[in-house]
Amino acid sequence: MPSELKAQSADFENAFLDLLSSKREVSVDVNDTVAEILAEVKSRGDAALLEYTQKFDRLEITAGSLRVTQAEVDEAVAKCAPESIKALELAAHRITDYHARQKPEDLRYTDEVGVQLGHRWTAVQAAGLYVPGGLASYPSSVLMNALPAKVAGVDRLVMVVPSPDGVLNPLVLAAASIAGVDEIYRVGGAQAVGALAYGTNSIKPVDIIVGPGNAYVAAAKKQVFGTVGIDMIAGPSEILIIADGKNDPRWTAADLLAQAEHDTAAQSILITDDADFAEAVKRAVDAHLQTLSRSEIAGQSWRDHGAIILVDDLEEAVALTDRLAPEHLEIAVDNPEALAAKIRNAGAIFLGRHTAEVIGDYVAGPNHVLPTARSARFSSGLSVLDFMKRTSMIACDAESLKAIGPAAVTLAKEEGLTAHALSISLRLEG
Amino acid sequence: MPSELKAQSADFENAFLDLLSSKREVSVDVNDTVAEILAEVKSRGDAALLEYTQKFDRLEITAGSLRVTQAEVDEAVAKCAPESIKALELAAHRITDYHARQKPEDLRYTDEVGVQLGHRWTAVQAAGLYVPGGLASYPSSVLMNALPAKVAGVDRLVMVVPSPDGVLNPLVLAAASIAGVDEIYRVGGAQAVGALAYGTNSIKPVDIIVGPGNAYVAAAKKQVFGTVGIDMIAGPSEILIIADGKNDPRWTAADLLAQAEHDTAAQSILITDDADFAEAVKRAVDAHLQTLSRSEIAGQSWRDHGAIILVDDLEEAVALTDRLAPEHLEIAVDNPEALAAKIRNAGAIFLGRHTAEVIGDYVAGPNHVLPTARSARFSSGLSVLDFMKRTSMIACDAESLKAIGPAAVTLAKEEGLTAHALSISLRLEG
Repeated sequence: MPSELKAQSADFENAFLDLLSSKREVSVDVNDTVAEILAEVKSRGDAALLEYTQKFDRLEITAGSLRVTQAEVDEAVAKCAPESIKALELAAHRITDYHARQKPEDLRYTDEVGVQLGHRWTAVQAAGLYVPGGLASYPSSVLMNALPAKVAGVDRLVMVVPSPDGVLNPLVLAAASIAGVDEIYRVGGAQAVGALAYGTNSIKPVDIIVGPGNAYVAAAKKQVFGTVGIDMIAGPSEILIIADGKNDPRWTAADLLAQAEHDTAAQSILITDDADFAEAVKRAVDAHLQTLSRSEIAGQSWRDHGAIILVDDLEEAVALTDRLAPEHLEIAVDNPEALAAKIRNAGAIFLGRHTAEVIGDYVAGPNHVLPTARSARFSSGLSVLDFMKRTSMIACDAESLKAIGPAAVTLAKEEGLTAHALSISLRLEG
Repeated sequence: MPSELKAQSADFENAFLDLLSSKREVSVDVNDTVAEILAEVKSRGDAALLEYTQKFDRLEITAGSLRVTQAEVDEAVAKCAPESIKALELAAHRITDYHARQKPEDLRYTDEVGVQLGHRWTAVQAAGLYVPGGLASYPSSVLMNALPAKVAGVDRLVMVVPSPDGVLNPLVLAAASIAGVDEIYRVGGAQAVGALAYGTNSIKPVDIIVGPGNAYVAAAKKQVFGTVGIDMIAGPSEILIIADGKNDPRWTAADLLAQAEHDTAAQSILITDDADFAEAVKRAVDAHLQTLSRSEIAGQSWRDHGAIILVDDLEEAVALTDRLAPEHLEIAVDNPEALAAKIRNAGAIFLGRHTAEVIGDYVAGPNHVLPTARSARFSSGLSVLDFMKRTSMIACDAESLKAIGPAAVTLAKEEGLTAHALSISLRLEG
């Protein structure tokens, strides 16, 4: 059964601390295996990449057939239901429109002493996108990871996706095509991450690698970090729903289960001020579980990690939410904006009874790659900024250097850095 | 002697690749020691923190004297030269003014189908600032790390600084005071990082830890990443100077040595199209080395890692610069903006003959914490954004959900996620 906590009970703080600190993921240490795979790919390039692909994906390919051809992509698109292609196109249009508004502006100004200052944003040259194979191969994730890179202006967007036994998901290829992915290679695992980071004869290296993956992929991304940039390593998904008693319990229950069906380690939490509603949601969860295709996973996640927190007043949810810092936060009350304004930590906020979190997974526009495991305290969802970098710009002339140079000389001397002092004082004399 | 490369020579590409891949840092594996220290601080809190402080800093303190008092700060400020305080105040004013212009704007709009979308930026609640003790204790670094957090609106800014044998640098305390640091604790090393990440009775936990440190501090930051956010792990400093023959070789030489004096692993590179100027710079370097207080360090860095690249035309510097992706780039030519506009990868660009890189270390305004080791290809200097996070905002009503909900249902079914489909379809029926 999911945990049930009452904010008024004496042991609430301890129970809440348990909830906060509960480990939902079993971390497998694959670092040594991954280090070996990366070293092999780094030193032997394509040869190692092909060997590992044969071993792990049971796929006999040559360097010449690593890349998925345009003909294969076209064939895949033709196989997809037209309705699904249309849905992807709608999603891509909305994601692009939302992310275009994230593009940062350059800055340039001359300050009161005549120093010209500013910053300039430029796109990363090449980005790699990891897409898992098999069941976790989600077309929506391809759009969510690829489109911010395209909007940023990345020159070269490279996708890797394993094809175990030669199988590729046609809708994943369609999503890549719609998103404008430039190159697709049928490789996966740590070996694909290595190929993207170090480059091989067939795959030119990239500057940043994003996208979800299993424990090997996550470990590989951590190990190549520094050589390339990486996005955050996502943990299991979470939702927190703040709901009053005026919601349809079937809607709330479906939203809790939509998180839970991702993974047995996912977590769904409901905060409500209405005990009867809480009971009704529990019953609706049980009823839904009778019909869902992934009810085994969803049921286990709900029983092991689900929680219902009963509060006297929904205002109490504000502080609890900030401590949980959920990836997804639904606020299903009459005036959700008022409550949202008081909350600091959440990856994304879904306002009002009709805003199912699921709408954000697919077509709302904002990114569905969001901070998990309480990291919304300090980090943000994937965005255009992850594919751009900022360069500071500074220009002094002789006059403006006179205004601020002496202070630099003073501080350089205090820090014992006499070449620093010399660099400025020579110019002040000159 | 520094390497000398000629872009026209047959072996240039190999020599340049050597330069790109040269390892300048000896990485020491301190992970096991650090893991043990962190585990002790996590489980035993203040007791462990005090034991390690006694062991590593030879400092007998109690939980009650961990915190540096306001009286101690005032006393330290009184000890500093008034000129140095004034220089810090000028720097703080300029850094604050520059970083205030980085504050991102919230976004809110209603799209063509009536979905309300946007994002909201909020400051991280608490930030920890690591400041090294001893010789590497730089007041300028305190300002550069603390002020972006203050500008972001961080509620609680906590500094840790080891005081080996009880010694604290008065100007570091003065800088903390000027920057508005809220709490200062006289602890350092992995134990201080652990205290910031996990909290102890005396030190409340923070959400993000920034600031430079030795190998133990860097390893500790990596290990607590996830529990808290961290800034980048900075490598040794670098400068690339693109200069024509019309510069004063003494200025250019001083700039090369200003990087070199930081660390024997620092790197200074000059690209020029004037062989006589290159020779004159080399002679000026040797002349300066006779007078500098840190000439041993600077000389070794220059001999081991310094390089002069002779090109026919400074336009060739563009592609080389993007491959090097230097932390600092000086462009000392007649029209530096034209060259800068073609360059993609650099942490900060210093435009024109009077813009010594050193001015950016102290008083120009932009941050001096910048991406090293070629990471300017994908990352940026420290900024206000590092202390803020973005929350996506989404609101649908019944009407707008009707417009986009069906596409979400289609994609959810394609991905085999029936609870996702149910969450939307219940609302579409409702």
